Amino acid sequence: MQYHLNGFRAGDPTLFAAAPGRSDDAPMPDVLDVLIVGCGPAGLTLAAQLAGFPEITTRIVERKDGPIERGQADGVSCRSMEMFQAFGFAETVKEQGYWVNETTFWKTDEDEGKIARIGRVQDVEDGLSEMPHMILNQARVHDMYLDVMRKSPSRLVPDYGVELVDLVVDPEGGDHPVAVTLRHKDGEEQTVRTRYVVGCDGARSGVRKAIGRELVGDSANKAWGVMDVLCVTDFPDARCKTLIQSAEKGNVLIIPREGGYLVRLYIEMDKLGEGERVASRNLQVDDLIGAAQSIFAPYTLDVKHVVWWSVYEIGQRLTDKFDDVPEGSDRLPHVFIAGDACHTHSPKAGQGMNVSMGDTFNLGWKLISVLTGRAAPELLHSYSAERQKVAQDLIDFDREWSQIMSARPDGAAGDTPTFQKYFVEHGRYTAGFSVTYEPSTLTGEGAHQALATGFPVGERFHSAPVVRLADAKPMQLGHVARADARWRVYCFAGADDTGASGGAIAKLCDALAASGSWWRDLLREGEDLDALIDLRAVFQQGFRDLAFEDMPALLRPSKGQFGLTDYEKVFCADPRAGDIFDMRGIDRAEGAIVIVRPDQYVADILPLDDGAGLQQFFAGVFT
Amino acid sequence: MQYHLNGFRAGDPTLFAAAPGRSDDAPMPDVLDVLIVGCGPAGLTLAAQLAGFPEITTRIVERKDGPIERGQADGVSCRSMEMFQAFGFAETVKEQGYWVNETTFWKTDEDEGKIARIGRVQDVEDGLSEMPHMILNQARVHDMYLDVMRKSPSRLVPDYGVELVDLVVDPEGGDHPVAVTLRHKDGEEQTVRTRYVVGCDGARSGVRKAIGRELVGDSANKAWGVMDVLCVTDFPDARCKTLIQSAEKGNVLIIPREGGYLVRLYIEMDKLGEGERVASRNLQVDDLIGAAQSIFAPYTLDVKHVVWWSVYEIGQRLTDKFDDVPEGSDRLPHVFIAGDACHTHSPKAGQGMNVSMGDTFNLGWKLISVLTGRAAPELLHSYSAERQKVAQDLIDFDREWSQIMSARPDGAAGDTPTFQKYFVEHGRYTAGFSVTYEPSTLTGEGAHQALATGFPVGERFHSAPVVRLADAKPMQLGHVARADARWRVYCFAGADDTGASGGAIAKLCDALAASGSWWRDLLREGEDLDALIDLRAVFQQGFRDLAFEDMPALLRPSKGQFGLTDYEKVFCADPRAGDIFDMRGIDRAEGAIVIVRPDQYVADILPLDDGAGLQQFFAGVFT
Repeated sequence: MQYHLNGFRAGDPTLFAAAPGRSDDAPMPDVLDVLIVGCGPAGLTLAAQLAGFPEITTRIVERKDGPIERGQADGVSCRSMEMFQAFGFAETVKEQGYWVNETTFWKTDEDEGKIARIGRVQDVEDGLSEMPHMILNQARVHDMYLDVMRKSPSRLVPDYGVELVDLVVDPEGGDHPVAVTLRHKDGEEQTVRTRYVVGCDGARSGVRKAIGRELVGDSANKAWGVMDVLCVTDFPDARCKTLIQSAEKGNVLIIPREGGYLVRLYIEMDKLGEGERVASRNLQVDDLIGAAQSIFAPYTLDVKHVVWWSVYEIGQRLTDKFDDVPEGSDRLPHVFIAGDACHTHSPKAGQGMNVSMGDTFNLGWKLISVLTGRAAPELLHSYSAERQKVAQDLIDFDREWSQIMSARPDGAAGDTPTFQKYFVEHGRYTAGFSVTYEPSTLTGEGAHQALATGFPVGERFHSAPVVRLADAKPMQLGHVARADARWRVYCFAGADDTGASGGAIAKLCDALAASGSWWRDLLREGEDLDALIDLRAVFQQGFRDLAFEDMPALLRPSKGQFGLTDYEKVFCADPRAGDIFDMRGIDRAEGAIVIVRPDQYVADILPLDDGAGLQQFFAGVFT
Repeated sequence: MQYHLNGFRAGDPTLFAAAPGRSDDAPMPDVLDVLIVGCGPAGLTLAAQLAGFPEITTRIVERKDGPIERGQADGVSCRSMEMFQAFGFAETVKEQGYWVNETTFWKTDEDEGKIARIGRVQDVEDGLSEMPHMILNQARVHDMYLDVMRKSPSRLVPDYGVELVDLVVDPEGGDHPVAVTLRHKDGEEQTVRTRYVVGCDGARSGVRKAIGRELVGDSANKAWGVMDVLCVTDFPDARCKTLIQSAEKGNVLIIPREGGYLVRLYIEMDKLGEGERVASRNLQVDDLIGAAQSIFAPYTLDVKHVVWWSVYEIGQRLTDKFDDVPEGSDRLPHVFIAGDACHTHSPKAGQGMNVSMGDTFNLGWKLISVLTGRAAPELLHSYSAERQKVAQDLIDFDREWSQIMSARPDGAAGDTPTFQKYFVEHGRYTAGFSVTYEPSTLTGEGAHQALATGFPVGERFHSAPVVRLADAKPMQLGHVARADARWRVYCFAGADDTGASGGAIAKLCDALAASGSWWRDLLREGEDLDALIDLRAVFQQGFRDLAFEDMPALLRPSKGQFGLTDYEKVFCADPRAGDIFDMRGIDRAEGAIVIVRPDQYVADILPLDDGAGLQQFFAGVFT
């Protein structure tokens, strides 16, 4: 964590100085850059990014009167944890949440006539991520985002109790083409004009309706119950994620929760008639408890305290686009939708919150790049293009998963059951690592993939251990990434390169930092050399075999008002924890350049050269 | 982290509900249980423990007008990090602080006539602790304690701007034998009566003077300067802890600081005359900078911003006792002193804050045990007995260390210099692991040490990796300890013990939990079985080879108002991370019981039996 660059500031380093004119009680202005509608995971992931840029005027409104306190989503995938690391609160989630380490499978043993454990698997396969799979109340995740926002230079806090009344886009309407009418708590209406609106307002999204998009899909006509409870049970696996598939009485999914006592149960309830809504059944929490008890039998389930419960029908629905640009048109987008506003599905695969946050982590840096004048607004077309496909995959996965979760037990005794096989096969998917962005100006073709086979182009950057040269700190390379809209370029050195003058790393860095270079041309007056692209180098030698003072200037740049040296750009392999060159298949002779997007996805792999490849790539990104 | 035991509470789980009548703005009462004087590391370590017990009326006063913001101590030893873990903020320190990974040694190369690196060592040897050696501004450590206090059920906040005017002990004065006169910010004086006073009020302690104790010792007549600066330098090891020993110009110790830019320099200044005080030299910050530049030469040192600086003379001083009980008397203590109030020394070994916090981490649980009626007040004699010896060791160490830090380079070229040898030899000391409490009612004779050779009796409990059985979570065993004044008993099972009925673990647990047992007799109406002593078991098998449901009731106790099961008492070895039985030399055939004090020190090792050994031990602790 780097701070004190422009002088010592006492107190919590995560509390930034407020930017001029920014405070947490400023009234809603009439003109905005970005209006976010909805304070769920999608809305807050976006707000927390934008809050780091006080030059962008952002507000986030929520129709509820305050932050939620319980219930709803709780699964935090490894991939989301990697993203939380960039926001600075992954460690808090690790401390406060439940770690999903082991998943067990139970079904009715036909000889015994009662449920028995028939399988168990490690929940996250080794080497998939440095982060665990976590369960934590969505409300707590919100709290952490709200904390980031409140401590940001923008001092951004949501406007609660504010409803969307109307939204009109006038593509010819100049700089602020969207007119939004909001109704405040006191009933007063206000019309704000804004450059962009992002609808993170859930399955009944008013923003989606205003841009004429529809959630299309179907329903499995199957009712499920969900409840968070404090209970006493003699069921042996009560603190493991567990799927119980009973012969006759339906299925239960057990999700242990944070704090060591709380547990969530998903309980299969009735089959619904064609077109029937679950509400018509008038199911009560006692129905859920009774159904769960009958599936648990002969184990006891004594519910002491119900914290939250709900019933829902399984369904998968999706919109065809995630913005307001009509099919076939190439006009610029001004309105976006994210999360449940554009894709809804069943909760049991634990994907909802994760995919929703992924949506706006994709959109956030793009909005920032455009609004700070770094990128052309055409960049924003890529949001719907990239994320609609991710949601389509999710819908397809969820349809299959839901069928398996509602299936009756199959296979002979002793066979690995279908649901266990499916679970293992889809481990990468549920951990959040199946997303692969297709080639575009933001993601290369992977022509040089062979130079770094463990960093597939289009997939998330997979962190690995390194040692920082200047202070010998063992750490994760991926943790240098912050949610700050900057690109990362990791230069992996060839075998004999020591960073010294004449080597490939030095040649590249010197070319980039040379007076009049394209790299410098991207920068504005007074900006640090790494303001847009944060270049770091990783060497094959141990940290005691290299000299920091031999590194090229770009790897020890002078920064801030005092011109202080940034000592955190150079890394070495850490054979004690695992050699990153081996772990990620990096060509030891040639080295490699790995370009990583601000949302942590690998944009391309390039050979180590004088920067021509980088120049060409970034010409497609920055204006 | 366990929470929601007595029902779901929304929000931050580290924010406890305020106890009845407790708020952060209550005026100073006239009658107290504990008055702490001084808001330094010693005072806050104590206040943060006591704050967890709202039934104890505690206040902490500080003559300064508010919390400090900069300067002073910054070294956090591995041992202190282990303690911070029990307070819940070790991870925050790891995120925000500087990690001391590598220490380098420089001296003047006589052939070259300039300073050169002559050695480097890993700062903390492998296996010494799961925690790193950290550097973080004392002010930030204070903030974290203040946060714990403010969020505690006591809502304890310091009374700033309050001075100690007078303190009188009347040993016959009933329940509240100490009368303390305080002067509030507005000049008004208030006399409070209290059971105990703890003077954490620094080298000029008014509490110490009031009980007639004196700091006795000597001075080395040597002036040193210290400054926290933002600077630019081409010195290669600017981000490593580094000692530079120049031939002619004195020595410098470089301590890189948190945030990646800030650095602390300790600079050897003038030799003082006999009896001369450093103030008489009227040294200014430019003198410090000039001296440092001349030692750094030929490397540059361009100081851009001085955050804090000071000059001091080296001296070591100590009081003969740390309480108000006259030598030879056996009357009960009512006043204690801790930290700089009873031991002062030079700052460069990084011990000051750590030993001070160690003082009151030792005192805190004892005060809590006595004030909650669990232990007889005679327990409090052990504070001075245990900690005065620790301070004496510190004084001896510091005298030697200071001489070495001020010595001229020695040895032939190519020899490992004396200071590097001394540094390596004393690594355990500086990491905080040399403290060994001598046999007493709190610490056994170690008659059964052979059963667990890696947990030396009297030393701190050395954590090791385990897997929690119920949820397969890989974790550190030592991290189950909280700063909650409870004792921990770790039962390490023999080779074939599965926890099932008939095994040694089950026999022990069943005897302890039996109706009418001495264990139950210690408890009050409505208290959980682990309210005073937190017993956990560690098995040799892997977590997939044991059944939670086979464990004895004491290892899956019913707790709280709902009788919920505590699933966090049973652990297994974790061969992937290191087998705790091997790492800590535990007798695999016999197993062992390890008793750990509330301050994380090993109290004794016992054989696995029916609890007779435990009963005998705790008879000496609890009333």
